[in-house]
Amino acid sequence: MTSSPRASSALLTDHYELTMVQAARQSGTAERRAVFELFPRRLPPGRRYGVVAGVGRALDVIEDFRFDAAALTALEGIVDPDMLEWLASYRFSGDVWGYAEGEAYFPYSPLLVVEGTFAEAVLLETVLLSVYNHDSAIASAASRMTLAAGGRPCIEMGSRRTHEEAAVAAARAAYVAGFDASSNLAARARYGVPSTGTAAHSFTLLHDAEADAFRAQVQTLGVGTTLLVDTYDVAEAVRLAVEVAGTGLGAVRLDSGDLGEVAREVRAQLDGLGASATRIVVTSDLDEHAIAALAAAPVDAYGVGTQLVTGSGHPTCGFVYKLVAREGAAGELVSVAKKSTDKQSIGGRKYALRRRGPSGVAEAEVVGIGAPPEDDGDDRALLVPLVRDGEVVGRATLDEARARHRASVAELPRSVTMMSAGEPVIPTVHLGP
Amino acid sequence: MTSSPRASSALLTDHYELTMVQAARQSGTAERRAVFELFPRRLPPGRRYGVVAGVGRALDVIEDFRFDAAALTALEGIVDPDMLEWLASYRFSGDVWGYAEGEAYFPYSPLLVVEGTFAEAVLLETVLLSVYNHDSAIASAASRMTLAAGGRPCIEMGSRRTHEEAAVAAARAAYVAGFDASSNLAARARYGVPSTGTAAHSFTLLHDAEADAFRAQVQTLGVGTTLLVDTYDVAEAVRLAVEVAGTGLGAVRLDSGDLGEVAREVRAQLDGLGASATRIVVTSDLDEHAIAALAAAPVDAYGVGTQLVTGSGHPTCGFVYKLVAREGAAGELVSVAKKSTDKQSIGGRKYALRRRGPSGVAEAEVVGIGAPPEDDGDDRALLVPLVRDGEVVGRATLDEARARHRASVAELPRSVTMMSAGEPVIPTVHLGP
Repeated sequence: MTSSPRASSALLTDHYELTMVQAARQSGTAERRAVFELFPRRLPPGRRYGVVAGVGRALDVIEDFRFDAAALTALEGIVDPDMLEWLASYRFSGDVWGYAEGEAYFPYSPLLVVEGTFAEAVLLETVLLSVYNHDSAIASAASRMTLAAGGRPCIEMGSRRTHEEAAVAAARAAYVAGFDASSNLAARARYGVPSTGTAAHSFTLLHDAEADAFRAQVQTLGVGTTLLVDTYDVAEAVRLAVEVAGTGLGAVRLDSGDLGEVAREVRAQLDGLGASATRIVVTSDLDEHAIAALAAAPVDAYGVGTQLVTGSGHPTCGFVYKLVAREGAAGELVSVAKKSTDKQSIGGRKYALRRRGPSGVAEAEVVGIGAPPEDDGDDRALLVPLVRDGEVVGRATLDEARARHRASVAELPRSVTMMSAGEPVIPTVHLGP
Repeated sequence: MTSSPRASSALLTDHYELTMVQAARQSGTAERRAVFELFPRRLPPGRRYGVVAGVGRALDVIEDFRFDAAALTALEGIVDPDMLEWLASYRFSGDVWGYAEGEAYFPYSPLLVVEGTFAEAVLLETVLLSVYNHDSAIASAASRMTLAAGGRPCIEMGSRRTHEEAAVAAARAAYVAGFDASSNLAARARYGVPSTGTAAHSFTLLHDAEADAFRAQVQTLGVGTTLLVDTYDVAEAVRLAVEVAGTGLGAVRLDSGDLGEVAREVRAQLDGLGASATRIVVTSDLDEHAIAALAAAPVDAYGVGTQLVTGSGHPTCGFVYKLVAREGAAGELVSVAKKSTDKQSIGGRKYALRRRGPSGVAEAEVVGIGAPPEDDGDDRALLVPLVRDGEVVGRATLDEARARHRASVAELPRSVTMMSAGEPVIPTVHLGP
């Protein structure tokens, strides 16, 4: 894994975050102790659960949120010199708790609790939301896809359908949610996500004959490679593929047509040719519903692109970052909330646990307001320390996040596997204050 | 504008692009002359036109597509040492033509024509698609929003709803398509997109009284600032806002409730208080339909977030990058195309012009196969040189892209302003070969 120095994340934010801090410095409130929370008001319509991803990336962002000389120059004219000086020494020094990466979430799950001065905590608002809203949207879609695939491997190949940097984050988030690999090389280099690839139609078209293309690929990548067999005639290509690679051919890829039907024909042909261990990989606008519909087809792996990187209809999570408590004039912590009928927030610092029955099945998302809810004995606390006094303390590996995802989804009620639209599989219960 | 050195874009690609080149080097076809085209097979369902954006970013990507030491180390084990050596000196040396940034597009518009060796041109596939698919999706949505807004300004404020780097590109693309400003500071620093901002509810909640918050903001940012007036009671906040800032208050922002109705009440109240020049900015999950529905309301500016950065229901364009011609064994250029019923491509190099009637109104997107279509006298050629012999020659400013967008949309048939679902406003006509 390469570890090139990461660029400052400090300008990946909204104009008003900085001007608000400047104004708060004017009114003497900038240094008031404050608690912000990042949470969803709801799941996307019809979704039964969500999956948290981006935690590791968010910790990188917090570490890298410094205003270097170039950033300060860019901010001249937006904030005053006094504020620029304050920004030059900015460094988040507070505490952060949050759901572990890979954890399932539900409406009002307090995914992040950020405590610090108002000034230092509000500056992180935009970029933390960007990371969480994107990465969790991808992981939530990916988790449904891996559930729908049963034990069959899913491969992320959507880089070309989304912003080139979002693609890297999407590959990472999909891996957290159970995908086996990605086509994205930067995700491999930065995060160690396994990368894989087959070949494009252009590679076949480049050659004077399909057999030439297959021969070149097998000679270069070995017989374990995956040959793309739908550029011209599928049956002829399958015959050629086994002729060129032998019965040890790793896999063939189908990228068009009625995938279930073609897969059955190709499976029969491969078996007839003695290539019974050659796998069939399918791609072509798959989503969780298409994957589920192929459950009975002889498919060995799914390559998923567009629908994965666009969150399968829900490209963002709608997480918000709200001030829930702040220091009052007398130094006490005061719960605060906007009074709005259509955008509800609940004041006061939150705690959360997943209530589980004696058999270990999740029963409710319990959110305590102002105090931790009591553990009934089978429950699981959800907030873990991520940052303490500005130092990252909660970094998990991607393997740990993958394990967390598996365990978290496994303890949800069985209805979690239903791909149809429905309510959250467990209710959110608020307790206290 | 700061111009920090851009990072290499060479790993922002798919695994198979590299292994295909290695295999083509094996078969002696890597250096064959090749023409790739980037184009849409269709518009998103119901859309009447699309808008090209990302051209300038794509040119940056082509310039920065070099494999540095870190990238080469990351590729060890994926390609062989001979290939690594070839990559170390990789530099695109071919030619690129394309639609100008801001131009309208239709099904099969040849947005980019990339000519070079197979090896050098195929390597750019993934990242060019990423840039175009994302940026054009945002610009296409943004263009409908600015049309729906009539002359009223639109402000991009969706950074928090999308990946943090996608947010910067989205701000840029929205600006191309007629938005007036963005909240995103990195878009300002990198591209000169004007930035702007108001304040969040947290700023009001931080203070012991709403008036304290308003006072701090006005003292810091001047009376021309925009005060957020829906944290508690709107009417009381408007009264306070004018009391604090005077009748010269720049604007108030409404972020909840029935925006049209509340805007009418606030307008009446502001006028009654003598603040008749104070503008009303509305935000809150706006899309082009909500903007159009507010046409009769006394709204002075629209702040658009989620629906802008997610392409208003269509977060990606479905552009593909296909080999359409390549050198044959005898050195001649051979048209090629995949034979598939559900994913049609047309072989042969494309040219394009917008057919216009004598009054200047667009009548058709004419795509010539193998030769440029004939100009009837009122037509407009669409492909401009972007890269010649590997050197960028077609860089336009964002102001030029904005002007191109305005002119391009202005010459489309009037039905372009309809927000309802419909067919492309002009047909695509293929001519030749």
